Amino acid sequence: MEAKLNNHIHYPAALVNVNGVISNSTDAKISVFDRGFLYGDSIYEVFYSENGSFIFLDEHIERLYHSAYLLDLQFSWTKEQIVAQILRTASESKIKDAYMRLVVTRGVGALTLDPGQSVGNNYVYIIDNKPVYPSNLYDQGVHLFISKVLKTDKRSVNPEAKSGNYLNNVMAMHEAKKQGADDALLVNSRNEITEGTTFNLWMSKENKVLTPAITSGLLQGITRQKVIEICQKENINFEETIIKPSQLLEADEVFITSSTRGIMPVGRINDTIYTKHKESGSATKKIASLYKKLLTKEQSKGKYKYE
Amino acid sequence: MEAKLNNHIHYPAALVNVNGVISNSTDAKISVFDRGFLYGDSIYEVFYSENGSFIFLDEHIERLYHSAYLLDLQFSWTKEQIVAQILRTASESKIKDAYMRLVVTRGVGALTLDPGQSVGNNYVYIIDNKPVYPSNLYDQGVHLFISKVLKTDKRSVNPEAKSGNYLNNVMAMHEAKKQGADDALLVNSRNEITEGTTFNLWMSKENKVLTPAITSGLLQGITRQKVIEICQKENINFEETIIKPSQLLEADEVFITSSTRGIMPVGRINDTIYTKHKESGSATKKIASLYKKLLTKEQSKGKYKYE
Repeated sequence: MEAKLNNHIHYPAALVNVNGVISNSTDAKISVFDRGFLYGDSIYEVFYSENGSFIFLDEHIERLYHSAYLLDLQFSWTKEQIVAQILRTASESKIKDAYMRLVVTRGVGALTLDPGQSVGNNYVYIIDNKPVYPSNLYDQGVHLFISKVLKTDKRSVNPEAKSGNYLNNVMAMHEAKKQGADDALLVNSRNEITEGTTFNLWMSKENKVLTPAITSGLLQGITRQKVIEICQKENINFEETIIKPSQLLEADEVFITSSTRGIMPVGRINDTIYTKHKESGSATKKIASLYKKLLTKEQSKGKYKYE
Repeated sequence: MEAKLNNHIHYPAALVNVNGVISNSTDAKISVFDRGFLYGDSIYEVFYSENGSFIFLDEHIERLYHSAYLLDLQFSWTKEQIVAQILRTASESKIKDAYMRLVVTRGVGALTLDPGQSVGNNYVYIIDNKPVYPSNLYDQGVHLFISKVLKTDKRSVNPEAKSGNYLNNVMAMHEAKKQGADDALLVNSRNEITEGTTFNLWMSKENKVLTPAITSGLLQGITRQKVIEICQKENINFEETIIKPSQLLEADEVFITSSTRGIMPVGRINDTIYTKHKESGSATKKIASLYKKLLTKEQSKGKYKYE
């Protein structure tokens, strides 16, 4: 039986904080004039905590600011205020291993696309238990499908901004599910692999590890960046480059990275089956082990601890 | 002094209907778990009434269903239920010349992109007075800027679906405003004119009227379709075709069409000034006059009248 992906927070979630007011999920609402609701004019981050301590939060906040920069979205709150509400919400939830989704919109305003007419922001924090992926996804691996939906060109809506415009990925995911896969990979108009719907992609071939270059049009994942640093530090032969689907289908191993998944092997892409990641000493196992050590180190720092 | 665009409904608007519950604007809210809010996973229509009668409502409802089809979004309400709430909201508002925005989302659900995990829909109707554009916009014309933001490719997110993913247009509008223009035009990756942020584009050159073909990647506007029918009926020399920016800058006349604007002349694109639309017998004046007659006829039908 094939492993089924369970990569989501069920609705209702535990708690929601809207602009500093914490409530349960069913009471958590936003104005219908919010530009996030009307136009997807928002940015977001997903991060998590382990044992009451947020992991790589500095990096996620930095990327939130990068998304804001790319969309010229101004914050009415300071970085300290944004972070304080993360910790306050987590503390109130009593969840020690938490998933958090932070959405910042361009606020409400007149019914016009012009962002100059918007007023302030809306800040939404959703917290729940960190999702637990079925263990066989880490053994057998996830089943991906290369979507016919092309990744949005960076000259149209830059995928480097983690925004509220996710129909591109929604439709790719929808297609993948109809094909019986767990999730989708997207190529750009030059038929270069970019990323998955909510994760970065990696492959290894003849002792070399490859991941699509940012220039192919993709989000700079936090876990992706951590794996790059691991490769550099550990002298693992590694390259950010253009990857075509044909190369991927001839890879020795394929794995994906995301904040909630960590390092997850890929067991199948379309009709190609991958099994080498199961062997001891595989690139996937090696990198997963090094990443786990990094996580332990990060957690021990306890910079974003809450009671 | 240049004419300034006033093409929007101010916040707060008059009334909002959320899933059949009518309230004032400030009370009108939606769950933060709504997929429209989280992913822009929604569709919408903007239409209006004159003298207590909705104009071209059949066409707008048909396009709403086309958008739903393109995104594989299912309705929990029937067409009759959707329309009944339009009339009920308009009636309760007492506004006879009304602007209405109808948003239908894929509802709430687990925090996953997979639309298969969503439950039902959310239906939001926003009503207010129909916006009145400054009369000099119909005399002098609107000032447009050809954006460096490329129109999203139809293979990524199809612009033929009027969806909640509008960052592409938001960013183009933002750029146009910074350039001192009223609004933006977008080209695709082949440098073909597609459409404006919320309107279709037309040009006339040597007694021939041209508009970008749907294959360039754009929304099939209701007013656009009406003007096509006018051209066919009145034997106006007309073509849907590829239009490059260079052709546009050499046009005799340029005008835009949208439901709320009707036919509006363009007075300037980047640094090119257009004045021929002001001459009596101009293509713009002729088509605007024929369109006005069509509106009168439509209104007299009174199919979607409310008290």
